[in-house]
Amino acid sequence: MVSTKPPSGMRDYLPDAVVKRRYVLGKVESVFQRYGFLPLETPTMENLSTLLGKYGDEGDQLLYRVLHRGERLSRTLTQEKIDMADLAELGLRYDLTVPLARVVAQYGHQLPRFFKRYQIQPVWRADRPAKGRFREFYQCDVDITGTTSLLAETEVVNAISEVLLDLGFRHVSIALNHRVVLRSMIEVTGIGEAMEGTALVAIDKLDKIGPSGVQDELIERGIAPTAAQRLLDLTTVGQDKDNAQTLTALRAMLPLPQAQQALADLETLCHLTADAPAGPRLRLAPALARGLSYYTGPIFEVVSEDFSGSLGGGGRYDNLVGMFSGKQVPAVGFSLGLERILLLMEEQQMFPDLRMAAQVMVCPLPDTLLAPVVGLTARLRQAGITVELYPEPARLGRQLANADDLHIPYALIIGPDEVAQQTYTLKHLATGEQQQLSEAGLLARLKQV
Amino acid sequence: MVSTKPPSGMRDYLPDAVVKRRYVLGKVESVFQRYGFLPLETPTMENLSTLLGKYGDEGDQLLYRVLHRGERLSRTLTQEKIDMADLAELGLRYDLTVPLARVVAQYGHQLPRFFKRYQIQPVWRADRPAKGRFREFYQCDVDITGTTSLLAETEVVNAISEVLLDLGFRHVSIALNHRVVLRSMIEVTGIGEAMEGTALVAIDKLDKIGPSGVQDELIERGIAPTAAQRLLDLTTVGQDKDNAQTLTALRAMLPLPQAQQALADLETLCHLTADAPAGPRLRLAPALARGLSYYTGPIFEVVSEDFSGSLGGGGRYDNLVGMFSGKQVPAVGFSLGLERILLLMEEQQMFPDLRMAAQVMVCPLPDTLLAPVVGLTARLRQAGITVELYPEPARLGRQLANADDLHIPYALIIGPDEVAQQTYTLKHLATGEQQQLSEAGLLARLKQV
Repeated sequence: MVSTKPPSGMRDYLPDAVVKRRYVLGKVESVFQRYGFLPLETPTMENLSTLLGKYGDEGDQLLYRVLHRGERLSRTLTQEKIDMADLAELGLRYDLTVPLARVVAQYGHQLPRFFKRYQIQPVWRADRPAKGRFREFYQCDVDITGTTSLLAETEVVNAISEVLLDLGFRHVSIALNHRVVLRSMIEVTGIGEAMEGTALVAIDKLDKIGPSGVQDELIERGIAPTAAQRLLDLTTVGQDKDNAQTLTALRAMLPLPQAQQALADLETLCHLTADAPAGPRLRLAPALARGLSYYTGPIFEVVSEDFSGSLGGGGRYDNLVGMFSGKQVPAVGFSLGLERILLLMEEQQMFPDLRMAAQVMVCPLPDTLLAPVVGLTARLRQAGITVELYPEPARLGRQLANADDLHIPYALIIGPDEVAQQTYTLKHLATGEQQQLSEAGLLARLKQV
Repeated sequence: MVSTKPPSGMRDYLPDAVVKRRYVLGKVESVFQRYGFLPLETPTMENLSTLLGKYGDEGDQLLYRVLHRGERLSRTLTQEKIDMADLAELGLRYDLTVPLARVVAQYGHQLPRFFKRYQIQPVWRADRPAKGRFREFYQCDVDITGTTSLLAETEVVNAISEVLLDLGFRHVSIALNHRVVLRSMIEVTGIGEAMEGTALVAIDKLDKIGPSGVQDELIERGIAPTAAQRLLDLTTVGQDKDNAQTLTALRAMLPLPQAQQALADLETLCHLTADAPAGPRLRLAPALARGLSYYTGPIFEVVSEDFSGSLGGGGRYDNLVGMFSGKQVPAVGFSLGLERILLLMEEQQMFPDLRMAAQVMVCPLPDTLLAPVVGLTARLRQAGITVELYPEPARLGRQLANADDLHIPYALIIGPDEVAQQTYTLKHLATGEQQQLSEAGLLARLKQV
């Protein structure tokens, strides 16, 4: 007997789980649409040439690759030395941003000048499964391509904030930083470009391992203790301060012109959203680094007080589309992680009652002619009523018990007399109340259920 | 520069295409729900042990396999003789029926006794791409497990018929046959069990290559000319006849008791649906064979006069769940092919106007304070209005031209005076008509758009 479990890190969604996922996705999609984002879908598989080199070395390791088939594979297997590239040229989607960049490069002329797209699809990463971390999981992305205007960032952070508000999240904020600010920190502390990536990875852990943990890691990785201390001073400058105070402090500590411009942009972004959903939630966070290498401007991350780890993040990436088209197309986006949102909503009991039950179960008594019963059932459904039909000959008690198991409130009891007289018995299962109704009466009654 | 096309046989769905797909899926899902089917979703990847051997040899060849990673792969690549099984243990979903069978085996006790599930997800087959045939495509499945009652077949064929009617298909029928009838034909013609599969593959081509083509193929494959002729007589008995005549003819030609029972079941199925959506569409088709090896009882296929090839099919498969659980669980289901439905609807111009445009574009004039504009935009959206915000400083003419390109009917023009007076200009782009409105007036007006 083979295992009937889904593969490790992947899940079956039974009906109750699907209904919860769709409730959340419905809210997400509704907000995205009100913000003028249009839906895009891309294939599960991408050419590996599209995916490789976009997510850092670690990302490349986590890609699922799809094996060649037939003769192509046979030929490879006869080679003395087999290369990864000879085994696979397709991989599974790792995020929704790289496919968007490819799409914009491919169909640019057919797309609106400012392409506002949303995309809600699964992605795959061969990561070690853990609580809230899966190998197949959904992302919900909004992106705007074609403009460097900060109104694009504004749209994106407002849309995400409104999604979170609509879902009922109250204790969330959006951490905000800028890649140029981070680069300037590296420069003024004298850490040097070669160590930038290493230093940022350490800084990003500030929330998790604290200042002394970060300092230890920086020194361990070969950064001079004085530089490590200066970097730490810069990244902790925002703690317990409001955004204006943090900006003032950073301006004083980062006198480079590019840093001053980036800080001015962050200030503008806070100002533009002041009267909109994101405003009260934006929090300058000089330690926010975000792993992906393609960001070039402002970066964001949704943080919840009730959950360690982020519910999503994003930022500006002005060079990624150009990697595919050779023509620079600026872009900014945000990706929400559906799985963590669901986990948190489940923990905090944020779901309304989403039970999905038929309105009525048709229960044919033994020896009833079934063709008219099937016909009536079809007409009720055509009128928009959700109807279950008990499929086997069984005594009524058994049928009613099944309706009850399925949380169906009404039973429509049909025996030979009912078929002959075209009058049917509608029973309310909770109260036991029964009504005799014609087909028209039944339709009118059930439309109110 | 790498290619920016999607992989061969796979497609990007730009917004207009997504909207059409969702229109169809919305109709499909609505009918499935009214019939009491509950949604299920399963992972993209399955263990190869789940998939292999369920779709025949050809199916196994068409499976996408996912390469091992890291050390596991390195170890494999050092082997002298490399086996497929050492390279991959995961594959992409090939249909939605085998995952359902696995789910029923795994979660049987948590599921309703009669599990009516629908599932709408993509599947992958490494087939040669052709018109209407893709390597990634969606299936829309309904299945009922847990009963051998013909009411289950009835539910399934009625649901599929209602979907097709709701989508506007008029010239479709459902071809109907029975695996036991096919097996009896093989038996009475003396073809023998060993050649059953070969003979059925040839018969299934009757519509495409005609009787003489089928006869040639049967003889070529080693079936005696007299047996081939007898089989052909049996499978063409239904041509130009109504169902009752076909049944009478088959009853006379297939005197075996199991064939008589199967024919009685087909008659019952026609009778049960007589007053329901499937009734007028069911057509007995003794040549219908269906490729998949797991069917055991009645089999169906949707045929359109406007399209060669089928729009979907299904049947009873009482042994598949048992292959996973060791416990026999009867099941019947139907799978609709979304891609062909879409292709046919496109060809026959069956789509309503599905344009997806914002209701209004907010156009800030140069030198306007943007924070209040962003605030107003957010409040309109919170009130349920779909709003686009022009993202860059630009003269009004350019902004209005962009709104027009996006088919947005109204522009909301906001300059410094409008911000100061909190009164806004709403322009109807088609007529040029303008109105000055307060925020409350604007909300009331736009809710009518």
